[in-house]
Amino acid sequence: MRKRIITISREFGSGGHTIGNAVAEKLGITCYDRELLEKIAEGTGFSREFIESAAEDSTASHSLLFNMVVNRSLQLRNEPTPADTVFFAQMEIIRKIAEKEECVIVGRCSDYILRERKDCLNVFIYADEQDREKRILQRYGENEKPVKKRIADKDSRRKTYYSHYTDRLCGMPQNYHICLNSSALGEESCIDIICRIFREVENETA
Amino acid sequence: MRKRIITISREFGSGGHTIGNAVAEKLGITCYDRELLEKIAEGTGFSREFIESAAEDSTASHSLLFNMVVNRSLQLRNEPTPADTVFFAQMEIIRKIAEKEECVIVGRCSDYILRERKDCLNVFIYADEQDREKRILQRYGENEKPVKKRIADKDSRRKTYYSHYTDRLCGMPQNYHICLNSSALGEESCIDIICRIFREVENETA
Repeated sequence: MRKRIITISREFGSGGHTIGNAVAEKLGITCYDRELLEKIAEGTGFSREFIESAAEDSTASHSLLFNMVVNRSLQLRNEPTPADTVFFAQMEIIRKIAEKEECVIVGRCSDYILRERKDCLNVFIYADEQDREKRILQRYGENEKPVKKRIADKDSRRKTYYSHYTDRLCGMPQNYHICLNSSALGEESCIDIICRIFREVENETA
Repeated sequence: MRKRIITISREFGSGGHTIGNAVAEKLGITCYDRELLEKIAEGTGFSREFIESAAEDSTASHSLLFNMVVNRSLQLRNEPTPADTVFFAQMEIIRKIAEKEECVIVGRCSDYILRERKDCLNVFIYADEQDREKRILQRYGENEKPVKKRIADKDSRRKTYYSHYTDRLCGMPQNYHICLNSSALGEESCIDIICRIFREVENETA
């Protein structure tokens, strides 16, 4: 089936954000990244800051599914947390966007949320440690935390969040159709590869 | 730097073997797969059967490096096991081949063995569960073990072997430059992507 949607999951500092935007520009389609945040803010009434921090909430020790099953067996009500409300809203918004138009969606578990669709190309962008550090310092500058610690913290928070809502392990190749090391291949090559595959791959098993 | 070598790591039943051979044919270079087995057999005197089983030895509970450090601290001699002898021989043979000629090398921890070289493109091929089962039954037929169990056993043995000799986790994207899901992309697309990258990517950071 012809691909219509590209989801880009990425490591912090891997250039995934830039690659996603460039791919969308090259293909002449919208890239949902900051725009998605705006839509979720509109839909839920939460601030963008809260929505951003909810996506890196490391306090969730079990998966959402696990909590729901336990609560049900204890005959407790499944009260959604504010982070859950954000997730459910983003799930609905991402599904609507995918239905409506060809686009690139960066992050926000979009690979998982759209897992039933056959017209998605799920991409994971990662990079070598040194390269991530360099990119983070260039983009966000120094702060009180050493850059290695910033990467470790962000990785850990993203992993917890992803596992909580998807019951999958974050960053495993099996979640994606293609994984690209932007340090080894270069951002330009990553952009080219994704655009070509998007237009060329028509495989019924996808 | 221009790439000269392609290492293909793969899941059992993912089509990595076929893809490796097709890539080599398309590029007009040698694919070392069975040929490597012959060379290791010649170099060590072990039978091909033993060499094949050594590459899936699940009895090694710690990494080779860990064992060496412990033995040294206990003032024990580091006696290589037959499996170690095979690994050291294959390490030497793979390094010599990489020095000598442009080629594709399938499996045998070649991504790790050649990790210091800047002219390698390290590829990981994986596939969806159902597709792996189908390919295994087509290629090797039924046997007394259910196909799901055959996959689980093989995955487990390969993981143990890889971790033992490399001190890395098998199948993590970070070990490779590109990971391709052959179910989603199709074998032909995987072959095309690898050939193009091999000829096109010239990135000093690789």
